[in-house]
Amino acid sequence: MFESYLDNVRNKRPVVHCITNYVTANDCANVLLALNASPIMADAPEEADEITGIAAGLCINLGTLSKDRADAMLKAGKKANAMGIPVVLDPVGVAASGFRINIASKLLNEVHFSLIRGNVSEIRTLAGECDHKEGIDVISEGSDDISKAINLAKDFAKKTEAIVVLSGKTDIVTDGKETFCINNGHPDMARVTGTGCMLSSVIAAFLAANNDRVTAGAAAVCAYGLAGEMAHKRLGSKDGNATYRNYIIDAVYNLTEEDIKEGAKYEMR
Amino acid sequence: MFESYLDNVRNKRPVVHCITNYVTANDCANVLLALNASPIMADAPEEADEITGIAAGLCINLGTLSKDRADAMLKAGKKANAMGIPVVLDPVGVAASGFRINIASKLLNEVHFSLIRGNVSEIRTLAGECDHKEGIDVISEGSDDISKAINLAKDFAKKTEAIVVLSGKTDIVTDGKETFCINNGHPDMARVTGTGCMLSSVIAAFLAANNDRVTAGAAAVCAYGLAGEMAHKRLGSKDGNATYRNYIIDAVYNLTEEDIKEGAKYEMR
Amino acid sequence: MFESYLDNVRNKRPVVHCITNYVTANDCANVLLALNASPIMADAPEEADEITGIAAGLCINLGTLSKDRADAMLKAGKKANAMGIPVVLDPVGVAASGFRINIASKLLNEVHFSLIRGNVSEIRTLAGECDHKEGIDVISEGSDDISKAINLAKDFAKKTEAIVVLSGKTDIVTDGKETFCINNGHPDMARVTGTGCMLSSVIAAFLAANNDRVTAGAAAVCAYGLAGEMAHKRLGSKDGNATYRNYIIDAVYNLTEEDIKEGAKYEMR
Repeated sequence: MFESYLDNVRNKRPVVHCITNYVTANDCANVLLALNASPIMADAPEEADEITGIAAGLCINLGTLSKDRADAMLKAGKKANAMGIPVVLDPVGVAASGFRINIASKLLNEVHFSLIRGNVSEIRTLAGECDHKEGIDVISEGSDDISKAINLAKDFAKKTEAIVVLSGKTDIVTDGKETFCINNGHPDMARVTGTGCMLSSVIAAFLAANNDRVTAGAAAVCAYGLAGEMAHKRLGSKDGNATYRNYIIDAVYNLTEEDIKEGAKYEMR
Repeated sequence: MFESYLDNVRNKRPVVHCITNYVTANDCANVLLALNASPIMADAPEEADEITGIAAGLCINLGTLSKDRADAMLKAGKKANAMGIPVVLDPVGVAASGFRINIASKLLNEVHFSLIRGNVSEIRTLAGECDHKEGIDVISEGSDDISKAINLAKDFAKKTEAIVVLSGKTDIVTDGKETFCINNGHPDMARVTGTGCMLSSVIAAFLAANNDRVTAGAAAVCAYGLAGEMAHKRLGSKDGNATYRNYIIDAVYNLTEEDIKEGAKYEMR
Repeated sequence: MFESYLDNVRNKRPVVHCITNYVTANDCANVLLALNASPIMADAPEEADEITGIAAGLCINLGTLSKDRADAMLKAGKKANAMGIPVVLDPVGVAASGFRINIASKLLNEVHFSLIRGNVSEIRTLAGECDHKEGIDVISEGSDDISKAINLAKDFAKKTEAIVVLSGKTDIVTDGKETFCINNGHPDMARVTGTGCMLSSVIAAFLAANNDRVTAGAAAVCAYGLAGEMAHKRLGSKDGNATYRNYIIDAVYNLTEEDIKEGAKYEMR
């Protein structure tokens, strides 16, 4: 199903404009380079639309949000919409403050997102269901009830006309019609900062280099999760989350179509 | 003496709000995740007190200081004081500019810090003793005269009603009454950027998860220093400070109460 | 030719003030520490000249440019000029926006740079030859025609009275009179974010610790490229760009004068 999605990224080398947080920007740039994509990390409002103008995809990430960064996001998002290139939203920790919720709402009102990726807490907050607050790197276990999670994702996809990627024990990728349930990845990825941010960057590259966006999103989730599994197998007894971070990026670097064919674990619902 | 202090962090998973510099924010987030704590890195003034409101500890770090970040620190610090949660100050490079000294003074006037951690140059500057300037990552050798260092730390602890951690060849942890002299750590840690910032984050997590704050601070210093020693033993002949950085975080990830029991090197003065 | 240039850095431990982007600031700090230099990363306009005042070298990097950061660059650059310490400019992605071009022009008008390092696209943009746009981490292959590249570098060196380092398959270092063509490095360095930024930081340290600036620049380019080669040899089949990043910094940490004597590949033109 996912043939050529990864190779399209490696061959087309899409320029991906990331307006992202300073905590994991380095990891996001390196994971894009691992895919052979071409990252541009830039967040000044003065240049946001011009930078997007030379990109094939845009990734907006709400970690370490500021007023200026939010302004850049709006400008870049509108430019991307005008160009028709994919825009990914990663609403990091949106439940944690009214400031984030307000900016996220504004973005959702003024920019059409191709894909929104978050955990249960983040997607619920965007969907207006609750304002449950927790640490940003805590992956909610709320997705145990898989059919509830699917409904949350599908409803939000229909409402926003975006593909929704709901990250959890099982990752859900849906455009409201087609739904992928994906079981790649490893629980210890939650112990590495930026694994979510990196995934969103990877998704932006996959969307930028492929036409069928919902399948491209699912392929990206499988590919990145699989890299997380392969990286975990390399870990020795003295290794921890720092080495794991490096090995995840390394695994993305070395990942092949063959690996994905053999290792992707998903079902359509 | 330090039994259960580490395990309390691992089990309680305190949310630690870090208002920190962009140079080492990634390392601080990963070292907190290595402890199984839950980092939130956020520095917008618009959300600072709300983010602190969901945290169990606050860590304020003056590296890459800006006006906005200083504003966030004041708001978050006051909120933390109102909540009664621990607040740690890491006055990175405070001796390097009047801008930093002024903001540090304002913070010390308006926020009660539970613990202040710095090297001799930084603590002396805060204490108003001198404005000796040097590179931020240079660890002053001024602490050779251990009793002078102890007096500096104790006096400043009494003045600020904070625990003071004076980092040097021997680390001193004191609340003005109880004083720990700690000989864990490795000199090569000074060749890795962010080892001080990471230690301050680790301390914030230990204070957030334990009641006896001075012992918690000392336990954190022993634990982190010991991780630095264990990481150093893993290094091969071609490894340098980048691999050392990763191994330090890895060692924190794998550190046990047993390790601390066997490896903590301290005496009470 | 390059004897003692590296050891001068290791022994003098120059303080290098970096006003740089948040994507690779951590790597720049660590590569400076790998050289035993002393990094200060600080970008607030309020303290820029004071921080430069305690430095032996200044490195200005246009990645993740903002109005405030640009303000700090101008102030720090003028202070460095007044002090007579070396100032390095890395015009990251300058071709990507009018905002960057305008700030770069202002900097070139108001600050005298000792050395400017960029790829063909960046140097051409600064020289006013074109405004070709591409991903920031894409290293242009335009330098295949080596004599054209040399002319570009020499002309720009004469115009700016700066040493110019033109990074490409062959790196060119010239002050308009003496010209080094350097063939160290490895193509895979382009797959690691920040290899250019790190090189610019390394150059700033070499210029700060040595008197003959054009030779110091060439020595830095050889040394860093050689570290990239040595690091590449360590890579195993499962390693990728994350491990490569770490090994490059590790190799700088372990690099010796002997290595440079044996491994430097350059010719004078």
